[in-house]
Amino acid sequence: MKSPLTGIVPPMVTPLRGRDELDVAGLERLIEHIIDGGVAGLFILGTTGEGPSLGYRLRKELIERTCRLARGRVPVLVGITDTAFVESVNVARWSADAGADAVVLAPPYYLPEGQPELQEYLDHLVPELPLPLFLYNMPSLTKVQYELDTVRRAMDNPRIIGLKDSSGNMIYFHRAVGLLKHRPDWTLLIGPEEMLADAVFAGGHGGVNGGANFHPRLYVELFRAAQAGDNVRVRELHAQVMHISDNLYRVGRHSSAIIKGIKCALSLLGVCDDFMAEPFHRFRGPEREKVQHLLAGLNLLHNRTP
Amino acid sequence: MKSPLTGIVPPMVTPLRGRDELDVAGLERLIEHIIDGGVAGLFILGTTGEGPSLGYRLRKELIERTCRLARGRVPVLVGITDTAFVESVNVARWSADAGADAVVLAPPYYLPEGQPELQEYLDHLVPELPLPLFLYNMPSLTKVQYELDTVRRAMDNPRIIGLKDSSGNMIYFHRAVGLLKHRPDWTLLIGPEEMLADAVFAGGHGGVNGGANFHPRLYVELFRAAQAGDNVRVRELHAQVMHISDNLYRVGRHSSAIIKGIKCALSLLGVCDDFMAEPFHRFRGPEREKVQHLLAGLNLLHNRTP
Amino acid sequence: MKSPLTGIVPPMVTPLRGRDELDVAGLERLIEHIIDGGVAGLFILGTTGEGPSLGYRLRKELIERTCRLARGRVPVLVGITDTAFVESVNVARWSADAGADAVVLAPPYYLPEGQPELQEYLDHLVPELPLPLFLYNMPSLTKVQYELDTVRRAMDNPRIIGLKDSSGNMIYFHRAVGLLKHRPDWTLLIGPEEMLADAVFAGGHGGVNGGANFHPRLYVELFRAAQAGDNVRVRELHAQVMHISDNLYRVGRHSSAIIKGIKCALSLLGVCDDFMAEPFHRFRGPEREKVQHLLAGLNLLHNRTP
Amino acid sequence: MKSPLTGIVPPMVTPLRGRDELDVAGLERLIEHIIDGGVAGLFILGTTGEGPSLGYRLRKELIERTCRLARGRVPVLVGITDTAFVESVNVARWSADAGADAVVLAPPYYLPEGQPELQEYLDHLVPELPLPLFLYNMPSLTKVQYELDTVRRAMDNPRIIGLKDSSGNMIYFHRAVGLLKHRPDWTLLIGPEEMLADAVFAGGHGGVNGGANFHPRLYVELFRAAQAGDNVRVRELHAQVMHISDNLYRVGRHSSAIIKGIKCALSLLGVCDDFMAEPFHRFRGPEREKVQHLLAGLNLLHNRTP
Repeated sequence: MKSPLTGIVPPMVTPLRGRDELDVAGLERLIEHIIDGGVAGLFILGTTGEGPSLGYRLRKELIERTCRLARGRVPVLVGITDTAFVESVNVARWSADAGADAVVLAPPYYLPEGQPELQEYLDHLVPELPLPLFLYNMPSLTKVQYELDTVRRAMDNPRIIGLKDSSGNMIYFHRAVGLLKHRPDWTLLIGPEEMLADAVFAGGHGGVNGGANFHPRLYVELFRAAQAGDNVRVRELHAQVMHISDNLYRVGRHSSAIIKGIKCALSLLGVCDDFMAEPFHRFRGPEREKVQHLLAGLNLLHNRTP
Repeated sequence: MKSPLTGIVPPMVTPLRGRDELDVAGLERLIEHIIDGGVAGLFILGTTGEGPSLGYRLRKELIERTCRLARGRVPVLVGITDTAFVESVNVARWSADAGADAVVLAPPYYLPEGQPELQEYLDHLVPELPLPLFLYNMPSLTKVQYELDTVRRAMDNPRIIGLKDSSGNMIYFHRAVGLLKHRPDWTLLIGPEEMLADAVFAGGHGGVNGGANFHPRLYVELFRAAQAGDNVRVRELHAQVMHISDNLYRVGRHSSAIIKGIKCALSLLGVCDDFMAEPFHRFRGPEREKVQHLLAGLNLLHNRTP
Repeated sequence: MKSPLTGIVPPMVTPLRGRDELDVAGLERLIEHIIDGGVAGLFILGTTGEGPSLGYRLRKELIERTCRLARGRVPVLVGITDTAFVESVNVARWSADAGADAVVLAPPYYLPEGQPELQEYLDHLVPELPLPLFLYNMPSLTKVQYELDTVRRAMDNPRIIGLKDSSGNMIYFHRAVGLLKHRPDWTLLIGPEEMLADAVFAGGHGGVNGGANFHPRLYVELFRAAQAGDNVRVRELHAQVMHISDNLYRVGRHSSAIIKGIKCALSLLGVCDDFMAEPFHRFRGPEREKVQHLLAGLNLLHNRTP
Repeated sequence: MKSPLTGIVPPMVTPLRGRDELDVAGLERLIEHIIDGGVAGLFILGTTGEGPSLGYRLRKELIERTCRLARGRVPVLVGITDTAFVESVNVARWSADAGADAVVLAPPYYLPEGQPELQEYLDHLVPELPLPLFLYNMPSLTKVQYELDTVRRAMDNPRIIGLKDSSGNMIYFHRAVGLLKHRPDWTLLIGPEEMLADAVFAGGHGGVNGGANFHPRLYVELFRAAQAGDNVRVRELHAQVMHISDNLYRVGRHSSAIIKGIKCALSLLGVCDDFMAEPFHRFRGPEREKVQHLLAGLNLLHNRTP
């Protein structure tokens, strides 16, 4: 794995046929679809991957199948965020055994911990992990964020190799860029795709953007244009990203709307099933129709796998 | 199990010797200590029990040992709250196999769900559970609460038998009391012990109070005095509860301070180890000394198990 | 004014005919209606009184008229909460000139201050006030609460004479009761009427309850029953309070629903106009009808002023 | 006033000698200092201007003096945000009389209103205003934001001419850019200076950046570089902005730290007094020393007015 890891690393959805059953054929199509788009890696079992909603047996199966299907073409990153220390370690071990390249960790998210507790937690956990670690900042869901002093401190540990910031807080991201001077190999990625161009201009290395599940090339090209400083092309591609954000991600209500929208698009494109693990459920008729119109507008439906 | 379940049901701490090792001897002493206090049940794997921080292997062991040690003297309730549907079902099955009496469920707590999603989640989950279910309202940690309309709807399902409210919102609790007319067998319990007397006066059936781990008799007597309408005695015992709340629960900072205080007290009383699962850790010297002074003031230290 | 002030002190709505025009006749009827109910005081320009939404000219007129109409029958308390120090002092001076008895202050509510800043603010403000001061704890609207250490410190200032707690946090209230031993003359009142009985059982002195605008006797009787320890009568009256809370206060949506419901009820009872200062507006037809049904159910409509 | 208004419009601090006394000489120096820096306008009585903390007499004096001192060299925008409709109108009238160019309005910030209420509020208020209006989005302080549907609706009113977004939410800002096609004359400005370059790249028109009080040229040059697409120069200047943000704005704690830091810098530069209106107070010795070191590092102290 290059360090820093540069480009688009889609937070892969988990194709399901039921609450404890992978859509195996869909998973294969999805991985091909994404890798064809020119991405720099695959991140499984994150928020978009419904990681916390999946049983451990299925998580293990997903890790193994994904690593096998990726065939080393791109690095595989696996989310190990958990409220239970020992389960995080277990998932990390399965990941190493399956050939994954790194693991990704947001703070334990039930009872909120203070920063000193979070730092001590990292001190205890990292030595137990067989793979290098990315921090995953997601305060809206974990209550606690990796404060920048905690990130700075984590940089002193060579087993921690990067940060994915999904806070949506651009000031935080700019400050995180300012820390890069302490670790030239550190990877800094942005979560919300609406901020991908901003993040790359600011000095970040790329994005973990949900839309890259169904339209990977768009995000890869936007990344490259931003990296090249081609402001005109950036504006054009960014407008498409905003179009998706303004429409597809607002079809549903509630916090799960983005994941539902992405899975629905993938289903309409013939890539994989859109079953959602509880407590969520797929879009029904009227929402599905809206997504179809949107995909037609994006000229994506002719790419449809037959 | 009586219905409604009336009295004090302590949310039992989990005695640990390490992050994946039960303090087996401590567990036995703790269960005896609590049952001796006259409680109406035991609730394991809740927030105070550090449920979400424990690995599943250890959860299973705890369920089995607790049911065996309780020997049917009081009903055992087991927390099955999880972000993953299938893991909740697994824990519920282990509970039934071990002889537990009921399971307890807060909303999935990673990505917040809307109330219709929460209702559908209950509709899907309850038929999979081999034991009756208590709802557990804990919005400060789960983000989402069981809105009262959702509680009302749940009352139509005879497999759902009660509500433990830890919201700290007395208006919510009074409204929940107002729903009892729809289900005479429904159990309504309060979480925060500072509100135990209020809850019983209001028409609730008792409390799930953390302090009952180390001082069960105090809470049991307060419950009985409130039930009997003995306002003078209530005031006297409530003052002791507030003394514990004002002191023991404020020794630490951060949200885990209450659990740390209770475990430290139990350790000083010789009942069990005070090891905490990550990301938390036990009180060190200075805090421990404060807890010791407090226990001395409560005349609890002479009860100390040798 | 007695100290502590004991009983029901309604947070009086402000009868308006337009955004800058008092309903003068309605104000007179309202004051008579409330005082007839046996209340212990009048609190104007609080949250229910739409204080922050009213221009200063109108606030001054309201203070003068209310003091004149109250004719010393009950003490008048005036809200001086403001983001601007000098305006709080101005309103306090008008209050003293008009013959009011005390002023009431929540923390400045634009940019949130830390507790040391809040303490220093009180240190600077209280010497400028010509009347004794009640603290008003309302964190959901002011962002900042009077932490209990700040309340304890305020008790050392004899010009600060009490606390009205509208936090809805019963643990906070119980802790505030615990501070009363430091100031036997200190008044402790509860805001949410659903918690009035709890507050009096706990050792509080009464309530500042919005429903006492249109049905003052109900709250006065509930207060007296709680004070007398008549648990049976408390339960009966409390059920009526909950009925109002469950119905009238849920006719509207948004945070202003309670005030709209109270004003609508007063309008239907013929007491005063229900005009609301911007950014809010009165209930329209369908909501008004619901309120009418509710008042009929409470047998209040026959009391209607012709 | 150009439309859209393009460039840097500093949110001017209010130089004070006491809680109700302007630092008149300091105000004159400050206005010259800022205008010398090449700004596109002055915005007074915003958050940085401590608008809500100032009495109305002083607000009027500030408006009049500022307009007189600006001498038409740049447009003057005046904050009229208030919880009371009639006071907002009053301040707007004083502004028009004094020769100001526009007024600026955040949502009323005591009791949070729903979006339909906010829309109706604008419908009622705008016809009463003698000057065109900018919306000011500041949800962390006003609780309520101008949802984008409300912004879109406001664009249909030609008297509403722009939006200043201080949400810190870059997704919101990108969506607001997407609305510009509906009103070519609409001005869109960003609040947080850390996001100034991002905002201009995105298609915004400039910034309302607090640091432009003491170092206006830096922000003006950053704006111009971003507008010109000079990515190298942007990176260099943005790094200076981040240096100020990372240091000066973190000298204090609490939400007022930024304003205190800016006022302290201005005092050290000899521009104006750093008195803060209650409930805040100026930095004392140790913090002041830190600010001095920072200014020395920025080579600003030699510019010091003697």
